Amino acid sequence: MSSERNVTLPQFNPITGAIRALAMDAVQKAKSGHPGAPMGMAEIAEVLWRHNLKHNPANPKWADRDRFVLSNGHGSMLIYALLHLTGYDLSIDDLKNFRQLHSKTPGHPEYGYAPGIETTTGPLGQGITNAVGMALAEKVLADEFNQPGHNIVDHRTWVFLGDGCLMEGISHEACSLAGTWGLGKLTAFYDDNNISIDGHVDGWFTDDTPKRFEAYGWQVIRDVQGHDSAAIQAAIEQAKANTTQPTLICCKTVIGAGAPNKQGGHDVHGAPLGDAEIAAAREYIGWNHPPFEVPDNVYAAWNAREAGAAAETEWNNRFTAYRSAHPALAAEFERRMSGTLPTDWPAHVDAVLAKIAEKGETIATRKASQNAIEAFAPKLPELLGGSADLAGSNLTLWSGAKGVSRDTGGNYVYYGVREFGMAAIANGASLHGGLIPYTATFLMFSEYARNALRMAALMKLRQIFVFTHDSIGLGEDGPTHQPVEQTATLRYIPNMDVWRPCDTTESAVAWAHAIERADGPSTLCFSRQNLPFQARSVEQTTAIHHGGYVLSEAGNASRGDAPHAVIIATGSEIALAMAAQKTLADIGTFVRVVSMPCTNVFDRQDAAYKTAVLPAGIPRVAVEAGVTDFWRKYVGLEGAVIGIDSFGESAPAGELFKLFGITAEAVVDAVRAQVG
Amino acid sequence: MSSERNVTLPQFNPITGAIRALAMDAVQKAKSGHPGAPMGMAEIAEVLWRHNLKHNPANPKWADRDRFVLSNGHGSMLIYALLHLTGYDLSIDDLKNFRQLHSKTPGHPEYGYAPGIETTTGPLGQGITNAVGMALAEKVLADEFNQPGHNIVDHRTWVFLGDGCLMEGISHEACSLAGTWGLGKLTAFYDDNNISIDGHVDGWFTDDTPKRFEAYGWQVIRDVQGHDSAAIQAAIEQAKANTTQPTLICCKTVIGAGAPNKQGGHDVHGAPLGDAEIAAAREYIGWNHPPFEVPDNVYAAWNAREAGAAAETEWNNRFTAYRSAHPALAAEFERRMSGTLPTDWPAHVDAVLAKIAEKGETIATRKASQNAIEAFAPKLPELLGGSADLAGSNLTLWSGAKGVSRDTGGNYVYYGVREFGMAAIANGASLHGGLIPYTATFLMFSEYARNALRMAALMKLRQIFVFTHDSIGLGEDGPTHQPVEQTATLRYIPNMDVWRPCDTTESAVAWAHAIERADGPSTLCFSRQNLPFQARSVEQTTAIHHGGYVLSEAGNASRGDAPHAVIIATGSEIALAMAAQKTLADIGTFVRVVSMPCTNVFDRQDAAYKTAVLPAGIPRVAVEAGVTDFWRKYVGLEGAVIGIDSFGESAPAGELFKLFGITAEAVVDAVRAQVG
Repeated sequence: MSSERNVTLPQFNPITGAIRALAMDAVQKAKSGHPGAPMGMAEIAEVLWRHNLKHNPANPKWADRDRFVLSNGHGSMLIYALLHLTGYDLSIDDLKNFRQLHSKTPGHPEYGYAPGIETTTGPLGQGITNAVGMALAEKVLADEFNQPGHNIVDHRTWVFLGDGCLMEGISHEACSLAGTWGLGKLTAFYDDNNISIDGHVDGWFTDDTPKRFEAYGWQVIRDVQGHDSAAIQAAIEQAKANTTQPTLICCKTVIGAGAPNKQGGHDVHGAPLGDAEIAAAREYIGWNHPPFEVPDNVYAAWNAREAGAAAETEWNNRFTAYRSAHPALAAEFERRMSGTLPTDWPAHVDAVLAKIAEKGETIATRKASQNAIEAFAPKLPELLGGSADLAGSNLTLWSGAKGVSRDTGGNYVYYGVREFGMAAIANGASLHGGLIPYTATFLMFSEYARNALRMAALMKLRQIFVFTHDSIGLGEDGPTHQPVEQTATLRYIPNMDVWRPCDTTESAVAWAHAIERADGPSTLCFSRQNLPFQARSVEQTTAIHHGGYVLSEAGNASRGDAPHAVIIATGSEIALAMAAQKTLADIGTFVRVVSMPCTNVFDRQDAAYKTAVLPAGIPRVAVEAGVTDFWRKYVGLEGAVIGIDSFGESAPAGELFKLFGITAEAVVDAVRAQVG
Repeated sequence: MSSERNVTLPQFNPITGAIRALAMDAVQKAKSGHPGAPMGMAEIAEVLWRHNLKHNPANPKWADRDRFVLSNGHGSMLIYALLHLTGYDLSIDDLKNFRQLHSKTPGHPEYGYAPGIETTTGPLGQGITNAVGMALAEKVLADEFNQPGHNIVDHRTWVFLGDGCLMEGISHEACSLAGTWGLGKLTAFYDDNNISIDGHVDGWFTDDTPKRFEAYGWQVIRDVQGHDSAAIQAAIEQAKANTTQPTLICCKTVIGAGAPNKQGGHDVHGAPLGDAEIAAAREYIGWNHPPFEVPDNVYAAWNAREAGAAAETEWNNRFTAYRSAHPALAAEFERRMSGTLPTDWPAHVDAVLAKIAEKGETIATRKASQNAIEAFAPKLPELLGGSADLAGSNLTLWSGAKGVSRDTGGNYVYYGVREFGMAAIANGASLHGGLIPYTATFLMFSEYARNALRMAALMKLRQIFVFTHDSIGLGEDGPTHQPVEQTATLRYIPNMDVWRPCDTTESAVAWAHAIERADGPSTLCFSRQNLPFQARSVEQTTAIHHGGYVLSEAGNASRGDAPHAVIIATGSEIALAMAAQKTLADIGTFVRVVSMPCTNVFDRQDAAYKTAVLPAGIPRVAVEAGVTDFWRKYVGLEGAVIGIDSFGESAPAGELFKLFGITAEAVVDAVRAQVG
């Protein structure tokens, strides 16, 4: 195989031997894992991590470090070995606990577990896309903060990726944009080993990948011998020399190089080598040490703590000079990288909300969302907006929006029709720090991006996903565009807060809440159609932050009586609930209307609050233009739910609400049936 | 703009004028819609539909018709105009009802509404992907059925697509595979008009698209003047002449060509032109007829009924000759295209189930699934299997599987790491007819494919989605690979049946049910880990078809007593329920175990059946290794649910079930708390 693919095996040595040995030993001990990529990419990793990567193992959060992303995340032992060897806080015992409960070394690299892991990878294609987001963030922040003679934002993003990442559609979206934006500090190493899980890729992956990336506007360095350190270093130099294009370095490698009988085949991809092959490999690569033992001289050769400290010190000195010259910018940079909001933020939000209440506008919540952006964005230069070619429909542009382009930074990204890429790029920008991304498309097309939303939630990222056209209320575009189950299914993503506001005030509160939320993403669902403003006391406005609250008390409450029923609604259906309340009052049935813009936040409230809003033993009716089963968690088996469990239809919105029986009359009937 | 893009405007005439007039008038009447694409692609459409497309308007289901896909589905008035003008059963009144309730002409082309609509399009990128699936089906069926001198399967697939489709990642997945498979009968017309919703695409779409498609192995015809009929015809000839590569014809067009003041700009993309511009356009293109009036001579020029009838008759004659020479093949072809299962299918299923019951194997349900495929596939040559590079993990290969390649057909597709493309290609194959596709990946990566699953449900396709590694039970690969909310969210897709079988028998029944279901797709979720066989009576095995049934009656039932509680479980948690039942019986608490492999099917049963399985007034406990809220629809507010509402962790599976409290002991405790 080596000959037909024209790839030369490594000159084995103890430096790369340490990676190979740690990878095969850890996978063997865990009885599962992927030795193939770490062993096949050992030389590339060595050249990058020992001679090119700007990092300080003692401070994995140094603002100007290079970012490294292992997009082929199944090869996690590669990065764990590198972090351990270069001196991060990742011990040999941590490596021994590879893939074990509560270890820092899970099966795939998980953000927040081991220091130096910049993003969680494993779902293929998203790592390279996160990296594009990191490089975009670097470009945007450099444009904003660097000053003549002061390049305080000046780092590179490096990616390892394999065939799997390149087959995934998201790689097209991300790499196309990286080319358009001219991300010259982004360099990807393609581990071209000709193997994926099903075997030699010739039967299902015949792209001319270099040509494809040239079509995206990348610099492509072809036919690099991936086990030849000098060739790798030369390619890196060429990548660095090109400041206007991202670079793809195509490295021909032998998967599992170092396992004499298995290298180059797909058996080495995702399973332990076995004791016999490991013994043979030790001999073959000249590594005569027991498992998890690395000689001191090899550790010394790898250790990057001294060089890393020097590098950071050098930057600190430069930052001190920057602070002297540009004190306000320096303070702002530190605030931004720390993720702290401006000190006057809370007061600003209160003022905005007061003004909204005063106006009392009846507008679409997508428009209310735009108004909220317009009100909040001037205070928050960290907001990096965008839309997947629906800026004018999603209403995510604002008066101070400036589009990012090849030539400049900015605070708004025209992502084109690339929902998944957009979401995962925004994840990367959030991970980079200094920015709070918000992105937008139609709620239906949250499905195209779905796993990136989940990854944002898993990584606890501050990230805002705006989704407009949130129900059959979008009308004529029909069932392909009309959400039915989307809001409910987004609410089921762990650690995702899903908001569906009913008016201008709730829309602004949802935005504020999402901006303030530091430990997870928020999804904001907005209507295409106009929704009436709801009057509230200041206390009620504050209560929106609980996710659910009494928007309108039952008419008999002043007499001290309990409501006859509770109607729970969200978004566009609040108006139906309010109308039903009025109709019912006329016949002596007094109902409370609970607005529940965010079930996820409501569920996190204490039991006393929840019971106060939804008292036990009182009949409940829920209404939302979406799947009904979701609401059983609030109304139980006995309550009623008004919603839609089928696909929508193409027609004017008003006709559709009637067709599907989502009307104030239906709510009235349901309450009457409940009250009996 | 015309000059800088080097594009020549049309020579307007009444033939193409009819398309332009119908499109602008229908959009205007509907007060919404997209005139830009129909007007910009009128010449391309005219050349294709009047001079090249093989079709019979009187029989839109003719087996050997060419397939036409409008991947830029927002331009729906283009295909409605074409269907109307060429003589399909789509009247001028249908066009007047564009985008209205219960019309045949919804906002996007919906499969099953107007005759001649081959697939529902609108979600960008999926149309071209469906088309790749149709062309794949043609290749596979031609390989299977054609005989020397008898090419009874010999038709082409034509696609219109725009910038949006090309930006979407799925276009990468689909077009890469089309190149690998050498789909020579697939031709796509790229409507290169330089406009997407956000404006001129230069800021977000700078790919060298011809080069990109050459990298996929396509024949690319560059720089075709998209308003020049002769140039278009020449390109089509070139496409037909190349039998080993799909062809992309890059057509430079002016969006909205014919609207004198708006053409070439993005205002014409997705909004009515307005009365003034329409009047100006009528003058500009020389169309002096009132809205929705087409002169007889124009109708006559378009009418394809005579030519279509002749074409089908010619094929019918050839098919008669084929039937004489190969009667068995001819009968099989007709059976396959009709979607009818073999007459001995029910008996075969019964025999298979009897054998499985006899064996009583404790194996992973993914292995049980493979056994079911092995048992059923020899009877069903229409099964077209596949996996997204996980054949050995999903266990979707069987002894008779033969991989599709560039050179041959087959019954198994190596899709590579392309989940979304796989699902939408399979949708296309199902739409083509003659095949029942099944595809596979890990359950987590259903998220990458999610909107294609929804489209299968919306189009009511016979399609089987296999998802393995269905819970934290997959173990060490960690939270990126461990489903939590996926099963629940898939169940919320309207018209999707989601099965999560607990053993070999339920796995085989799920497969049989999915194969037999003619009006919608099924999702089959299987475990990585071994699950014990459950003994059943023949009646119980039959009852699996109800989606939920009493797997094990409470120990006090023989005395005629009601159970103290009901435990509802699915898949791997049935074993926990059964163990809990035993433990509880020892302390005199008698519980019924209900197995609920498919909640969607159970929900469709009549009230009497449902009440018989889940009697009112008896405490209920649900257990499933997934989000708990889903189960409130069965257990209400008072019942208990054992499940997981957070992300998983990387560790051996057994430790994870303990960590997250999904154990028989937890079920016992929950029942005891319920029973009190």
